Amino acid sequence: MTAGLILFTVTVAVFCDALHGLSHTHFQATKSAGSSDPQFTEKFFTQTLDHFNFNSMGNGTFSQRYLITVDQYWKKGYGPIFFYTGNEGNIWEFALNSGFITELAAQQQALVIFAEHRYYGQSLPFGKESFNIPEVGLLTVEQALADYALMIRELKEQLAASHCPVIVFGGSYGGMLSVYMRLKYPNMVAGALAASAPILSTAGLGDARQFFRDVTDKDFRNISPECRDAVRGAFHLLKQLADRQDYSGIQSEFALCKPPASPQDIQQLYGLLRNAFTMMAMLDYPYSTSFMGNMPANPVKVACGTMLRGLDLLANLRDTAGIVYNSTGLLTCFDLYSLYVQCADPTGCGLGLDSLAWDYQACTEVELCFESNNVTDMFPPMAFTEKDREAYCSKRWAVAPRPGWLQIQFWGDALSTANNIIFSNGDLDPWANGGVRKSLSSSLVALNISGGAHHLDLRGSNDSDPASVVKVRKVEAELIAQWVKMERNRLTAAYTQL
Amino acid sequence: MTAGLILFTVTVAVFCDALHGLSHTHFQATKSAGSSDPQFTEKFFTQTLDHFNFNSMGNGTFSQRYLITVDQYWKKGYGPIFFYTGNEGNIWEFALNSGFITELAAQQQALVIFAEHRYYGQSLPFGKESFNIPEVGLLTVEQALADYALMIRELKEQLAASHCPVIVFGGSYGGMLSVYMRLKYPNMVAGALAASAPILSTAGLGDARQFFRDVTDKDFRNISPECRDAVRGAFHLLKQLADRQDYSGIQSEFALCKPPASPQDIQQLYGLLRNAFTMMAMLDYPYSTSFMGNMPANPVKVACGTMLRGLDLLANLRDTAGIVYNSTGLLTCFDLYSLYVQCADPTGCGLGLDSLAWDYQACTEVELCFESNNVTDMFPPMAFTEKDREAYCSKRWAVAPRPGWLQIQFWGDALSTANNIIFSNGDLDPWANGGVRKSLSSSLVALNISGGAHHLDLRGSNDSDPASVVKVRKVEAELIAQWVKMERNRLTAAYTQL
Repeated sequence: MTAGLILFTVTVAVFCDALHGLSHTHFQATKSAGSSDPQFTEKFFTQTLDHFNFNSMGNGTFSQRYLITVDQYWKKGYGPIFFYTGNEGNIWEFALNSGFITELAAQQQALVIFAEHRYYGQSLPFGKESFNIPEVGLLTVEQALADYALMIRELKEQLAASHCPVIVFGGSYGGMLSVYMRLKYPNMVAGALAASAPILSTAGLGDARQFFRDVTDKDFRNISPECRDAVRGAFHLLKQLADRQDYSGIQSEFALCKPPASPQDIQQLYGLLRNAFTMMAMLDYPYSTSFMGNMPANPVKVACGTMLRGLDLLANLRDTAGIVYNSTGLLTCFDLYSLYVQCADPTGCGLGLDSLAWDYQACTEVELCFESNNVTDMFPPMAFTEKDREAYCSKRWAVAPRPGWLQIQFWGDALSTANNIIFSNGDLDPWANGGVRKSLSSSLVALNISGGAHHLDLRGSNDSDPASVVKVRKVEAELIAQWVKMERNRLTAAYTQL
Repeated sequence: MTAGLILFTVTVAVFCDALHGLSHTHFQATKSAGSSDPQFTEKFFTQTLDHFNFNSMGNGTFSQRYLITVDQYWKKGYGPIFFYTGNEGNIWEFALNSGFITELAAQQQALVIFAEHRYYGQSLPFGKESFNIPEVGLLTVEQALADYALMIRELKEQLAASHCPVIVFGGSYGGMLSVYMRLKYPNMVAGALAASAPILSTAGLGDARQFFRDVTDKDFRNISPECRDAVRGAFHLLKQLADRQDYSGIQSEFALCKPPASPQDIQQLYGLLRNAFTMMAMLDYPYSTSFMGNMPANPVKVACGTMLRGLDLLANLRDTAGIVYNSTGLLTCFDLYSLYVQCADPTGCGLGLDSLAWDYQACTEVELCFESNNVTDMFPPMAFTEKDREAYCSKRWAVAPRPGWLQIQFWGDALSTANNIIFSNGDLDPWANGGVRKSLSSSLVALNISGGAHHLDLRGSNDSDPASVVKVRKVEAELIAQWVKMERNRLTAAYTQL
C-alpha cells in the first residue's frame, strides 16, 4: 500500500504456532488508515528456491509473502527496519498479534516487515505439492534464514535503505530464528529480540520432563495445588475407565462423537486433553485473545475454576478441554482426530498444511522429545523418546532426524562470542526454561516477565498488562535504540570509507 | 598410523590449488617414524552427503578423507587440535606443504588433522559421477563447512577430546574456509589462522584489475621495470603476429605442438602464458618447491633473468613459460590445451578432476571476475566480466552464478562482530590485496610478510626464510597459544557447570 485513506479488509487464516498446538480458525480484520492500527501491505518476494544447491531445481524461485508498512512510521532512508522472522504459520497471525513491534516502530520511526516462513501460510514453494517427498526437502532452518538474509539485502536496495540498521524480532520458533539471524548474519542484522525462544530445549539441551512439569507447576499448581491435584485425579479416573475398557463410559463422559475403540484412541484422547492444558498455559494472557484460537482472559484460572467446580472430575476435565476446543459452544461432540493431531512435536503441531510443515521440522532439525509421566507432572504417562521419533519420522517423511545438529549449527549454549540479543521469557510460559534465562553478558540479556505467558512482550499494550511486561518492553526499547545507533555509526563509517 | 618405527611410502597426486592454476604431477614422499617429519595416518570419515536437505538423497553418506597425527605431538585429551580446512585439491599436497602447522603442534602438544574438501582428491561423493549434473550440486562452501563442523564434533568424541580447543588453519581458499568456520561455528573453533585468504576479492568486493596489476607491479616490476617492460613488449610482438594471422610464426616461436588455427587458439595461448607469470608470482618462494608443480627458488627473479637475457623477446617469453610448464626439460613442444584449461577462474583451475570442482565453485559462489588489459598490467587484454561468467557457467554447468551471495553469507568486510582471526598475507602475493590487510581489532589481526609469497607462513621453516616470516610465525604462535588458553578456560567452566 502506498498512501492515502485506503480502507481495506483482510481475511486472515489463523493457523497455529506449532510450538504449541491448536487448529486454525478464520476471522476478519478491518482497518482504516485513519486509525493508529498498523497498515500492512501484503507483497510477494521472488525468493531463491534452494540456497545451498545450484543444480537441484535449476535456478528455481518461489513467491514468498511478506507484509510491510511503507508509509507509516518510517523516516525514509534513515529510520531502522524492524524485521519479523516469521515462524510456523500464516504471517498475518503474527503481524496481528505483535503490536509491540509496531508501537515501537511508531516511537523509533522504523519500517516494519513481517516475512512469512517458507512452507507456511501462502509461501508454499511447490503449491499443494509442497509436502510431497522430495519437494518438502527444501524446508530447513538454514533455507529459511537464507531467505530472510536475501530478502533483507534486496528490500534494502529497493527501498534505498542501505544505511538503515535492521533489527530482527521473533516469538517462539520465530525467536529462535531471530537469534540465529544474529549469530549467522550479524553483517545484516544489528540485534535480535527473541521472545520466548526455546533455543536450548529444541537443540536437545535440557530435560525431557521440563516442559510438562512446568505446565503443571508454573501454571496449574501456581493457581492452587488443589487444581493440579484435580487434574491429576481426573486423569487417574480416566485411566481406570480405559484399563477396564469402558469405552462407552469414556465416550459419554467426554462427549466424544464416536466411542474410542482401541488403546490408540485412548492415547489420542490423552494427547488431545494434555494439549488443552498446554495451550492454556502458553496463552495465559490477562485478557482474552484470538491468537491460535480463542482464549478467555486468564485461561488457567478459568480452567482451575472449572476443574474445581464440582465433584465429577471427569466432567470437569471435559469442560476444561472445552475452553480450548469449544470456545464458541457450538460443538455438540468432540471428534478425537479432527481436533488434535499427534505428530513429532508432543506439544502439538496444530492442524492444516502448516501442521505438516512443523511436523517435518520436528522430524528433521528441531528436537522436541518431551515426555509426561504423571510423576513430575499431572498428565498421563506419554513418552516420546528419540527412538520413537526416529520410527515415526522414517515412516512419515522418509527422514532420519539428526540429534545434535541444531546444537552444532546454532551453537547450543556456547553463545559467548555473540552479542546484541535479548532473550525474553515469561515465567508462566512452559517454553521459558528451554531458553536462556540468565544474562550472559551486557549485550546478551535475559529478561524475565513475571506473570507473563508465551511472548507476552511482543503483544500490543493492554490495560490489563502486568507491570513487569511494561517494564520489560521499556528495557527492550532502550536496548534496541542503542543497537540502532551503534549500527548506524558503523554503516555510516563504512560508507565514508568508500 | 599408530606408533613405532614404521616406514611407509605415500604416493601423492599433487593437484593444483585452484586459486592459482597449474596441472597435477605425482611424486613420492618417503618418511620414517624416526624422523621429525609429521607422520600422518590416512583415514576416512563417514560424512553426511547433504546437510541442508533431509530428503534429497535419502540419508546418504560418503567417505571423506582426512589425515591425522594421533601419537605424535599430542598431549592426549588435553592439547589443542589443529584442524586444516582442506581446500581445492588432494589433501596430501596441503599436508606436505604446511610444515608450520606440525612444527607448531610439536611446540604446543597439538593433535593435527588435515581434512579433505568434498569433491576433491579422493573425497568424491559420487565417485566418477561426481561431476555430473545434478550430482555436482552438493558442492558448495556451506556443505564443506558443515562437513568440517560435523567431523570436528565426532572426532572429538571418538578421541575423548571434548575439552580440547580447536584452531583452524588454511591457506588461500582453505584460509577463506578457516575464516568462515570462525564466523559461522565459533562454538566449535576457537580461532583461525587464515593465510593468504582473499575473502574480499572473491566476494566481489574490490577491483577486477587488482590481481593482474599486482602480478605485474608487486612481482615483476619489483624485480625491475625493465623486466615488466620486456614482458609487455613480448606480448605486443605476439599480438602483432596474431593480428596478421602468422600462425606458423607463432607456432615456431613458441614451440607449439600444433599451429594455432583461430582467434580462440590465440586466446588460449594468452591464457597459458599469463598463467605462467601468475604461478611464478604466487609461488615466489626463496627456495625451490614442489607445490603445484616444480618451481625453482625465486622464480620471478629467474623469469626476469630469462626475459632479459637477449633481444629475442618472443623466445624469452617462451622460455619463461617453460620455467613453469617444462621444469623437467622433457617436453619437446607445448600443447596448448593440455597444459592449461580456461575456466571460470581467470587465474586458472588447474587440470584433472580437481579443476572441474573448482570451475564449478567459480561458477556458483566464488566470484573471480578478474581482468587483464595491458594498461594497468603487462598482459594481453583479457576481460572476464560477470556477463561472460554467466554465459560460460550456464553452458558448462547449467547454473547461474549468484553475485553477492558470498558477501551475504560470509559477511564481506562487515567483520566487526568476529574475533580470533589472523589474516596473514605476503606482499609478493597477488592474492594479498584481495584479503584483509589492516587489523580490525586486537583479535582480528592482519599480518604482513614482507617478501612473502602465497601463504609462505604455513610452510615449514627453511634456512632461506626472510626474517619477516620468522617473526610473523612467532606472532601467530603466540596468538594461537592465547586462544587455546582462553578456550580451555571456557570449556572447563562449561564442564564444571554441568
